[in-house]
Amino acid sequence: MTDTKYSLDEIRLRLNELDDQLLQLLSERRRFSIEVAKSKVETSKPVRDASREQQLLVKLINNGKDKYQLDAPYITKIFHTIIEDSVLLQQNYLQNLANPQQSRKPLARVAFLGSKGSYSHLASREFFSRKNTELIELNCDQFKEVIKTVESGHADYGVLPIENTSSGSINEVFDLLQHTTLHIVGELTQPIDHCLVATKDIQLEKIKTLYSHPQPHQQCSEFLSRLSGVVLESCASTADAMQKVQELARDDVAAIGHASSGKLYGLQSIQSDIANQTENHTRFIIVARKPVEVSTQIPAKTTFIMSTSQEAGSLVETLLVLQRYDINMTKLESRPIMGNPWEEMFYVDVEAHKDSESMQLATQELIKITKYLKVLGCYPIDNVKPVIPDLNA
Amino acid sequence: MTDTKYSLDEIRLRLNELDDQLLQLLSERRRFSIEVAKSKVETSKPVRDASREQQLLVKLINNGKDKYQLDAPYITKIFHTIIEDSVLLQQNYLQNLANPQQSRKPLARVAFLGSKGSYSHLASREFFSRKNTELIELNCDQFKEVIKTVESGHADYGVLPIENTSSGSINEVFDLLQHTTLHIVGELTQPIDHCLVATKDIQLEKIKTLYSHPQPHQQCSEFLSRLSGVVLESCASTADAMQKVQELARDDVAAIGHASSGKLYGLQSIQSDIANQTENHTRFIIVARKPVEVSTQIPAKTTFIMSTSQEAGSLVETLLVLQRYDINMTKLESRPIMGNPWEEMFYVDVEAHKDSESMQLATQELIKITKYLKVLGCYPIDNVKPVIPDLNA
Repeated sequence: MTDTKYSLDEIRLRLNELDDQLLQLLSERRRFSIEVAKSKVETSKPVRDASREQQLLVKLINNGKDKYQLDAPYITKIFHTIIEDSVLLQQNYLQNLANPQQSRKPLARVAFLGSKGSYSHLASREFFSRKNTELIELNCDQFKEVIKTVESGHADYGVLPIENTSSGSINEVFDLLQHTTLHIVGELTQPIDHCLVATKDIQLEKIKTLYSHPQPHQQCSEFLSRLSGVVLESCASTADAMQKVQELARDDVAAIGHASSGKLYGLQSIQSDIANQTENHTRFIIVARKPVEVSTQIPAKTTFIMSTSQEAGSLVETLLVLQRYDINMTKLESRPIMGNPWEEMFYVDVEAHKDSESMQLATQELIKITKYLKVLGCYPIDNVKPVIPDLNA
Repeated sequence: MTDTKYSLDEIRLRLNELDDQLLQLLSERRRFSIEVAKSKVETSKPVRDASREQQLLVKLINNGKDKYQLDAPYITKIFHTIIEDSVLLQQNYLQNLANPQQSRKPLARVAFLGSKGSYSHLASREFFSRKNTELIELNCDQFKEVIKTVESGHADYGVLPIENTSSGSINEVFDLLQHTTLHIVGELTQPIDHCLVATKDIQLEKIKTLYSHPQPHQQCSEFLSRLSGVVLESCASTADAMQKVQELARDDVAAIGHASSGKLYGLQSIQSDIANQTENHTRFIIVARKPVEVSTQIPAKTTFIMSTSQEAGSLVETLLVLQRYDINMTKLESRPIMGNPWEEMFYVDVEAHKDSESMQLATQELIKITKYLKVLGCYPIDNVKPVIPDLNA
């Protein structure tokens, strides 16, 4: 670049051209990622190859520095996103091959809790948008209704929140899973980003009434304690709260909700990140009547429930089985068994394909030492763990 | 793309070419971002223009969909990173103009707690790498020593952790800030990602001794409770723990630390994400003898301390002043005043430039109603808030 002065319009025109070229390259890169997946179908190699990703990233960082004056953190961040996308795309391709029936359905009926803009609604949209599936959305009032709607065949899938980083596990869903015939076919972890939304960009001190579900209220208590003279009104859901604000169409009311949800109700975010704990995620599971086939080439999670004998140490014994087979447990949760107050049901998530050799052997051993064991599902792991570039190698 | 089969080597060659083109475009885009900053010097417009960013993102998403079959979440993620980089680059350019003396120093002496690979060390490197500054690193044993090293002129900057999402505020640092003549000149928020690191990729059950600082121990208690028969040994810091494992060079020992730090000690991560709370961030402040000039075109934060009278409601009165001037408070922390057990010192962070009209007016009012007020610093806000694309507009 010479020292010639560009006008802001000229610069923006050039930036637009560059951005369009970026999109084109990203699109072409995706097509070749699918080619990689195709070649892996034949070789049965796993989708992820940590040493190759490591190599690729280090080469990109070195090239970026030497040839293009780009720094390592920037390149790492951009290519973590690109690699994540490529991995998910390849997994999706292999999953479609493994589940030819589902992949031929471009339309799915999905049941979830709450109305338009609820966190479950946003999660449903995100999960199926990755699969290029159009949705028919079925709003339910209760978790139980979500399960029933799928069990009865009125919906193909149900989306249920299962745990939240700030408020913990959602016990009701765990208890329902004990008795359903449905299978877990997927998972999704979603950031819960509480914002204050209103009909227009009003000042905080103007707010007289704030509508919200009690849980977000509690999760934003520190921020709310700083608002003086505001009346807090409880609603059945964050979506209801936003609908209320939309209907009132006044400039002295606001609701707590996600910025994207607010937009569905024509509301705008007047203050973001208002939660006490700024990092807040909810994990959702997707349930269906039929289990999903998981390609052995992609990282899988298996969820099972079990009850052990009441002898001391019997739980530890089961965990030692998993450890012996080098199976990583990502979650362990215990819930009382309904109608049997002295026994506990354990919910276990492991990072393993249910058909892998180690998992098969572990399951055989577990069956011997537990009173009850049932696999709730085996499904692709939602998050793509980024490779940390080793720049000293 | 036709149906011709590509060999995996051919595909990878093509992917490499595409990645190189991506780097080239990102580099060119950066040069034009600097041109935008140059043009803004003359117009005095703020660096961020939310409505233009919104427009840009929506256009990219629409183009990406129509022309290139790319989905909105992917484009949003990639361009959030690109926009963030562009904003930081422009801010840096304007900050260098506002601080000509500092910007001419390509070398800085930085004091921080702990040795090679401590979280403070990683934070120092990241903060100054963004500024293209080479570092002379000065390891300190105590927070007090960090402050003294800068006050005495032996270091140009000090890097201090101030709060952590899982363990809260770091009181010792707050207390030191009450009595120092140093100014806060910057901030940095860093993810704390605890991993298990070892000399080679050993199985978890092989580990006999685990070295760690007590805080990571506590933050990873759930994971550690699942390891049986492991002896936990305390060290003065995570860095010391990793050094110990490096020196022992045995395959039955491991340490808790950051994967990048582990690499500085030739260790590899054998298990990542082992903290109870998976989202864990530490906020660091950067202190120096001279305050930094913050361009009024970029988002700034001001930190001040104050003590109020002991009358009931006097704190609330000060907060109402901030609210009246529409100044957003991002942090409020109280600490006892040393030697004066009945009074409290309040630490306040606000999203405002200290020289802005509203902040000037608010400060004048606050001085009248507080017993003591001192501005610790005004500095650029570290994180670039992403624009949420409004696809319904």
